[in-house]
Amino acid sequence: MVETILKPEPIDADRFRPFGDVFDAEGEPDMIINEGRCGRHHDKVRLDVGTGRAGISLFRTRAVEIPYALTVMERHPLGAQAFIPMSEDPFIVVVAEDDGGKPGMLHAFKTAPRQGVSYLPNTWHAPLIALRDDAVFAVIDRIGSGNNLQEFTYDTPVMVSG
Amino acid sequence: MVETILKPEPIDADRFRPFGDVFDAEGEPDMIINEGRCGRHHDKVRLDVGTGRAGISLFRTRAVEIPYALTVMERHPLGAQAFIPMSEDPFIVVVAEDDGGKPGMLHAFKTAPRQGVSYLPNTWHAPLIALRDDAVFAVIDRIGSGNNLQEFTYDTPVMVSG
Repeated sequence: MVETILKPEPIDADRFRPFGDVFDAEGEPDMIINEGRCGRHHDKVRLDVGTGRAGISLFRTRAVEIPYALTVMERHPLGAQAFIPMSEDPFIVVVAEDDGGKPGMLHAFKTAPRQGVSYLPNTWHAPLIALRDDAVFAVIDRIGSGNNLQEFTYDTPVMVSG
Repeated sequence: MVETILKPEPIDADRFRPFGDVFDAEGEPDMIINEGRCGRHHDKVRLDVGTGRAGISLFRTRAVEIPYALTVMERHPLGAQAFIPMSEDPFIVVVAEDDGGKPGMLHAFKTAPRQGVSYLPNTWHAPLIALRDDAVFAVIDRIGSGNNLQEFTYDTPVMVSG
């Protein structure tokens, strides 16, 4: 038996666009504010929260063991979800196209320091995969009623390297 | 002449509440998610964006020189604004009560690593005061039409220590 290992690639905004947005403060800002000290990169995320409202929550997570045994994917049909790391530690992002109501081909990425990632509504993604313990993220997602969580469980874990 | 120096105190959620929210992932989470690895501290910010929508922008700023010569205060009448640091560097927050359409008594605070801060709509605050160069913040604020910026300029700068 050949074991498949999913190896994260450096995340790339263009390649990630079908799943969501990679956002950082690289490149030219859209405006200069605060007495010339500060560049504003304006409105960088497709943050569709549908019939809900956007809220700010905090996630605090343990690190995973590498290789990570990915057993579950999830998606949020009613709204986008953005992850903003509150330290400079990279994290791993696994997404998938939809294949008839379940996750299809998997894609794994690793962020750089000071990059955030968002998922479009209804985009299959792995749970938060942090590489350091006690990692803290601000999460911007939809607050509202309705069932906004679907999960899919694999019979055999997919192994993800670091 | 006696020069007044405003000395930032460690930020405190209770004392800050009239101006906005201090949010972090301390204390008991509201729910445990992601296979037991992660605590969610749910919906921690009063993020009123009125007739607009919430968007995610990135601010990248130079450090100020300490003591910082504060010359301008600003407020956003149409929506709240939240600052999420994307590194573990503390920053300084200066707010004021309103005094007949201009900032009254000033209050200065310093954050701890992995703390974010939001301002309620129409709350007087200083521009972003970072203590390290190239500091990056995710900013969640109102995207929409209308004039959402008021500024007040002091004749004599207020000096803020580090």
